[in-house]
Amino acid sequence: MEEPRLHCIGILHGDITRLADAPKNFSESNRTGILEIYPKYRDGLDGITKGQTIVVLFWLHKADRSILKVHPRGDSSRELRGVFATRSPARPNPIALSELLVQAIDENTIAVSGVDVLDNTPIIDIKKKI
Amino acid sequence: MEEPRLHCIGILHGDITRLADAPKNFSESNRTGILEIYPKYRDGLDGITKGQTIVVLFWLHKADRSILKVHPRGDSSRELRGVFATRSPARPNPIALSELLVQAIDENTIAVSGVDVLDNTPIIDIKKKI
Repeated sequence: MEEPRLHCIGILHGDITRLADAPKNFSESNRTGILEIYPKYRDGLDGITKGQTIVVLFWLHKADRSILKVHPRGDSSRELRGVFATRSPARPNPIALSELLVQAIDENTIAVSGVDVLDNTPIIDIKKKI
Repeated sequence: MEEPRLHCIGILHGDITRLADAPKNFSESNRTGILEIYPKYRDGLDGITKGQTIVVLFWLHKADRSILKVHPRGDSSRELRGVFATRSPARPNPIALSELLVQAIDENTIAVSGVDVLDNTPIIDIKKKI
């Protein structure tokens, strides 16, 4: 298979600017942010409502794609483990999954809480939570 | 941002060969299958154990990337909705999330249950479930 190319559908605006300040994952975050979806993808948002939890896929553009073992949660006292057994951002395809609570939605922007990624992280997908 | 390219880390072997036979999602599936991870990514699996639920990201290579509205669950009696408010395979970046139960693991293959994608679907990531 030819390697597929991802389309960036939008970008996250938030207040986390350093990796050291990022929560380990959405379930440990009370940070808020804005999902700005590019106008050409606006129609895909119809049906998303305030109060709903959505699953957002981000492309972690600063992550290391070359390593396959990490110390879980960056804790060097813990044994190395395969990246696929963790939630580490480092992995061959650095896609993050965050479950975010919709606080408000207006045209092509969605205000959310639970943010655990850096300001300016590209958004690649949004799904209904099952 | 330049459009990132995905690396295929493996492939799903299963018994679903027609879209019409695929369960709507993992939570409605009792199908089993084998995740074959390519040898160069083998080290990334260390730490995955039998009995664990893993989150697997697939690239739905047959999905339509051009449409932004769908009838939920393919039911034409339901109003059109934005793809980002659904779990439709059709979306700009057709990535599926499945939560699969590990039945067995041996070197670079993982036997799983809960499969909801077609035989030969490319695998792009595996994560620990939170």
